[in-house]
Parts: sequence; structure tokens; C-alpha cells
Amino acid sequence: MNNLKGNCLLAQSGGPTSVINSSAYGIIKEFVKSANGKTFIGAYGIEGILRKQIYDVDNIDKGTLEGIRYMPSSALGSCRYKLKDFRKETEEYDKLFNIFRELDIKYFFYIGGNDSMDAAAKISEYAKFKNYDIKVIGIPKTIDNDLVETDHCPGFGSSAKYVTNVAMELWLDINTYTAPSIMVLEVMGRDAGWIAASTGLIKENIPWVNQLIYIPEISFSEEKFLNDVSESVIRNNKLLIVTSEGLKDDKKEYINVGSNCYENDQFGHKQLGGVGKYLQQLIKNNIHNKVKFTELGVSQRCAMHCVSKVDIEESEMVGREAVRQALQGNSGYMIAIKRTNDSEYSSFTELVPLNIICNKVKEVPIDWMNSRGNNIGTKMREYVLPLIKGEINSYSDNGMLRCVDINKFR
Amino acid sequence: MNNLKGNCLLAQSGGPTSVINSSAYGIIKEFVKSANGKTFIGAYGIEGILRKQIYDVDNIDKGTLEGIRYMPSSALGSCRYKLKDFRKETEEYDKLFNIFRELDIKYFFYIGGNDSMDAAAKISEYAKFKNYDIKVIGIPKTIDNDLVETDHCPGFGSSAKYVTNVAMELWLDINTYTAPSIMVLEVMGRDAGWIAASTGLIKENIPWVNQLIYIPEISFSEEKFLNDVSESVIRNNKLLIVTSEGLKDDKKEYINVGSNCYENDQFGHKQLGGVGKYLQQLIKNNIHNKVKFTELGVSQRCAMHCVSKVDIEESEMVGREAVRQALQGNSGYMIAIKRTNDSEYSSFTELVPLNIICNKVKEVPIDWMNSRGNNIGTKMREYVLPLIKGEINSYSDNGMLRCVDINKFR
Repeated sequence: MNNLKGNCLLAQSGGPTSVINSSAYGIIKEFVKSANGKTFIGAYGIEGILRKQIYDVDNIDKGTLEGIRYMPSSALGSCRYKLKDFRKETEEYDKLFNIFRELDIKYFFYIGGNDSMDAAAKISEYAKFKNYDIKVIGIPKTIDNDLVETDHCPGFGSSAKYVTNVAMELWLDINTYTAPSIMVLEVMGRDAGWIAASTGLIKENIPWVNQLIYIPEISFSEEKFLNDVSESVIRNNKLLIVTSEGLKDDKKEYINVGSNCYENDQFGHKQLGGVGKYLQQLIKNNIHNKVKFTELGVSQRCAMHCVSKVDIEESEMVGREAVRQALQGNSGYMIAIKRTNDSEYSSFTELVPLNIICNKVKEVPIDWMNSRGNNIGTKMREYVLPLIKGEINSYSDNGMLRCVDINKFR
Repeated sequence: MNNLKGNCLLAQSGGPTSVINSSAYGIIKEFVKSANGKTFIGAYGIEGILRKQIYDVDNIDKGTLEGIRYMPSSALGSCRYKLKDFRKETEEYDKLFNIFRELDIKYFFYIGGNDSMDAAAKISEYAKFKNYDIKVIGIPKTIDNDLVETDHCPGFGSSAKYVTNVAMELWLDINTYTAPSIMVLEVMGRDAGWIAASTGLIKENIPWVNQLIYIPEISFSEEKFLNDVSESVIRNNKLLIVTSEGLKDDKKEYINVGSNCYENDQFGHKQLGGVGKYLQQLIKNNIHNKVKFTELGVSQRCAMHCVSKVDIEESEMVGREAVRQALQGNSGYMIAIKRTNDSEYSSFTELVPLNIICNKVKEVPIDWMNSRGNNIGTKMREYVLPLIKGEINSYSDNGMLRCVDINKFR
């Protein structure tokens, strides 16, 4: 029990994941255990806090609180809200800090990705500028795995695990018949190819897979792509192609923003066509028309039914560590995950200043891919393999996910 | 050990499922245990058998055989091959029976859906017509759950389980932000709405779900649909809509075959647009544009990572029972699954003549849905709930599905 007084407020921000609630759970449990103050939940991130959608954990029944530990999506609700530069405009900061003062908030925990770390950094700086004593800690969360200064991000391992297992199932599915069959799977990642690259793990359990992988970090060329596909289908008339949703040409422009990539919908409106459909059509026009397309959409970011145990445990770990660090008086940091150099995977946490995290994107290093740039290399394999390991039982007795009513948090 | 002599041949046909290999495993294990003859595997169904792609199980190592038990897709390979009417054309039958004679095949097991039961029926009839002593048994398999005379079909429970859990995750995902959000999920089922209807189970674990379900059995009307959606979004600005891929108007015509439903692809070609995209566009044009679309495609038929224990055990059960019945001298039957009337779910098998199965489609009874025809009723709930229950550990230590090299069967 520390000597610091005051209450804490936690909130979630940005897109949901399978494990973001485990971080919230970790924060709540650790603060209740280690501090004297009250634990407040801010619904819908900064946006909800500014609307005073704030709830005292003491008023939420224990079963509901326990229930969020293994529940996907953002139980507290989220927002995509960009705080202004307080040197130019202090209105929203004044409002926020009035609420902090009113509720005696001395600890603020914000769980999110790049933009959320930016918000946490600004709140921390404004507090210092105003001499308001509050400890601000950012807790990383993004399936995109694109935060710098952390080995990986909570949420990524589970997304990688789901996408990889579905990709295995799709590979086995297209092997059903003797006829040629190509499957194009489009996965999340507009600027970083971590999720797509993860699926290179398939060959661990299916060494006979015939697979190509395309990521935003490696310039896309139609000619090279069609060469890759042609060579692959000579080797094996079944082929699995996994692509990130964002692919870029040698000028770093998205390939699916050009005039080629618009399609008319059923009512004649122009719509942005996805990369996967574009690759499918390229193959149809140049190779053969036995090519299917699968896009997992948002189902890949909340697939709790295929969660990684390592991921969900680390998510709770960073939440708990955020509280410990704040109670030790640290502020303006994100809890980063680092891995030890042992042969057996293990991880630990480290403090990283928030202001060196935000507004940067961690890309897949090109030398972690193979020399052709169309599949993974050894480094990517070693990096991602430990992150998808282990299962927890997230099902109820009836075969469906355990869920609680999250309206109790909102 | 029975007194009958001769060898057996088994094969798979039609689309793959998560559990079709469990049926194959059951057949192999039971025949090896109970009969004197050799066990032959026919690769790629009738089509492969006609090409003499036939393998002796004795030549396959034990680990590989055990490995298919919990592996998705059709390990033996499959086909979509329609046997001709032997009263008009016997060439392919002569070829087939010459192969049977050559290998001394006295038992033929064919695992598949409607068309496969048709093939098994024809082979059985031709054998009687030619006085060739062979016992032919059909083993049901289809995620569509549309075979008549069986309570349900192996493969359906696992597909329903996966789709329902993903639908839960999508529901929680669209509840992340405060803004209105509608999710349209399109699932398999062109003529029967079993899979879409299953997702009505969500409310078991999420009573606050706001959901609409549309199936082919209930005539679709744009006006009624838009009324349903308008009323639902007044109640709750989050809405989950699950639709079968086939919806029909009051003339029993598919609604997505009309001129409205074609879209131009990125290269200007006309393509058949799916029902889900059509519903999405209807909502955009008439309600609001905060509507997302998810289509699971073939990933829903092979989602072993979310398999139902009941389903996979019953799949092996029907395979084993097929062997027992054949060894008792029965032929020309499918092994149907029936459920007891006990309060606790349990099932047993029954023989049903193949010729009353084929070329029929079992639809969802309309009175199993609610009176509005846009969600499930009590009967559907009670029917499907036991079928998705229970988990098996289908993962390796590394978090990925256990797989063996199925080329050893082919």
C-alpha cells in the first residue's frame, strides 16, 4: 500500500482487440489491491470522460468485472478523439482537468494505440505545465503491432494467431479438389505488414504449403507479382496468397487508390476496391480464373475464440505494471514489452517516454522477409512464433463465448 | 469379427467441412478392428476412383492416420461428380465395378451431401441390378444441414458454432463507439437458412443483442426489411444483421440475380454481387451509411479451430456405424442421426434408404422462427443449442492447428 492519495481513472481508446479488456482488468485489480483510492472507469475514452461518463468500479458487481477479463472488444467503450495542441487551445484540457479535480484523479491510465499514446502524452505534458499532480501511463494496444519501442503490442499475437489458423484452413480447403485453385486472403495492415507476415508460420505445421505474402513495406510491382504467381502455380496448382490491405508502389503510394481500383457498387456508386480483389482480378486477367478471395474484415481484431494465451497474459501484465509504475510516482510513460534473450520465450516490461512513441510507425524490417520479398525469413519466424502460443478456455458450457453486459460500464 | 470376406473402399465427396475426416477416421478404425479385409482409400471421390487413385491404408503410417482425426477439410480429396443414369449409360459403372472386382471391394462407404448420397444410391442399385455383392453405405456430411431424414448433418454444428461466435465478436466490435453502427454478416446457405438461423443463439450469452436474421425460407421484401431495420435502430443504434447468401422473393426467385445485383469489378467486368452487399447498400440508400459488411466465405466450412465436440464425435460415430451396418449385411442406406427425447441431449443412429434422401432439401421450418420471420423462435433455439457444445484441443503446442501431410492419402 503506497502513501500517495487520490483516485484513478482508466479508459480505452482506438480500435478494439481480443485482449484490451484484460489490460483494463489488470489495472482495476492492481489499483484496488495496491492503492487507497477509488477506481473510476471512463466510458468511450477521452470523449466520454469529457461528457462525464465516469463510473465507480465499486458500483459494478464482481461477476461483471471478472467477466470482462476474457471478453473481446472494448468493454469500456472507445473513441477516436484527437486532443488539440494545448499551447494553442486549452478549452478541452481545462474541462478535463476540472473533472480530474472534482473526482480527485491522481492516476490516469489510457489503453490504446498510436493516437491514444499521443493523447496520454499531451495530458501528461499539460499536467506538468499546470503543476497538477497526476501520474499518466499509456498501455499499448493494437493488432497492427506498429508501436515503436516495444517488442510487440498486446492484441497483435491473438490477431496473428486467428489469421494464421484461418489461413491454414483456407489452404486445406483449396486442396480439396484436383482442379487449380488460388486463394487470396486480405488481412489488416495499411502501413505495416505484421499480420500478413505472421501467416508465414503456416509452414511450421504444413511444410507442403505453397504460399506468397505481400506487405506494405515491400514495393509492389504487378510484373513481379504475376511472375511470383506464375512460378508458384507451376510448382503446385494450389496457391495461397496473403496480402496486407495496404500495398504500396515504389513511390510509396497505395496501389489501391488509383483509377484501376474503384468499382461500381450495385447502385452505381463508386467505391474503393480492396487490394485483395485487385490481386484476384490481376490473376484472373493474366493467369487463370480459378481464384477465390477472402477478406476477414473486423472479425480478425476481436477473435477471442482463437486468442493467444501469451497475448492475453501479457495484456493483463502491462495493465498491472502501469499501476505499479504510477504508484511509484512515474508519469508520462508507456509500458513497453521486451523479450529476454533466453532460448525459451519470456518477456518483461520497461518504461518508455510517451513522447517518443506517438506519431511513429514500426514497420516489418525488410530483412525479416525472404530475399524475394514474398514470404517470411528466419527472423520473422522467430519473432512471431512465441506470440501466438497457448490457449485459454474462453467458452461457456454452451459453446459460446462468455460475455457480460458491458452496458454496466457505460 | 464377421464371416464376410472382402475389402472396403471409402471416399469423400462434395464440399469440405471441419469434421468430414473424423468420419473417414471412424470408418478406417472400425473396419480395421471388425473385418478381415483390407481398407482402401479412394482419393478425390468417384472421380479419383475411376482414375484408380486408390491407396491401401496399411501403407500409410499410423501417425498420419491418427492426424486426420482432428484435421479440417477433405483429407482424402473430393469431387463434384454426377454419375449418369445407368439405365441409359453404363460405361462409368462398368469401369467402377471392374475396379471393385479387381480389388475385391465388398464394402463401399461414401461420405458426402445430397449429390454424394445420389451417387451412393446409384452404385447400390447398379450392384443389385448386376448381382454384384457389395454393401454400400452413405455417411452424411454438409454444413448446410439440408439432408432430409436426419435430425442434423455432421459438419453443421461446427459451422454454426464458428459463425455464431464470430457474430458475437462482430456485435461486440460494433458496440465499441457511440456512433450508430450496423453490421451485415453474410453466411453460407443458398436454399436453407440453418447457419444464419443458428446465430440467433447469440442472445443466450448476450441478452442485450439487437439482431435481425434473414433466411431463404422466408420471402424477402425490401419494404419489410427496411421497416425491420428502421424499428431496430430506434431501439438501439447498434444492429447486427445476419443473412443467408441466398434470399428469395415471394416468387421463390433469388433476390441477388436481378439487374440490381450486378456490380462492375475493378477491370469493368460484370460480377454477381452478394446478398450481404445488397442489404448494405439498401440500408445506405434508405437509413444511414454507417453500415459495414462481413462475408466469411469458405472460412466458415473448415473452421476446425472453433469445432463443436458434439459434432466431431458424432461424425466419427456415423463413420463407425456405417461399417457396423455394412458388416451386418445392410446396403443402400445412409446413417442418419436422431436425437432422443430426453431433457439432456443425446443422439443415436438409424438407417435410412439412400433413395429417399437424395435430391431433396430440408428447409428451416418457418414456425421455428419468430412470428416476424426476422429472428429465431424457441424450436430453433432448442434444436441448435446442443449441436455447438463442447471443445476439443485441436491446436499443437505452437498455437496452430495440428496437421498431417494429406498428400500421403492421394
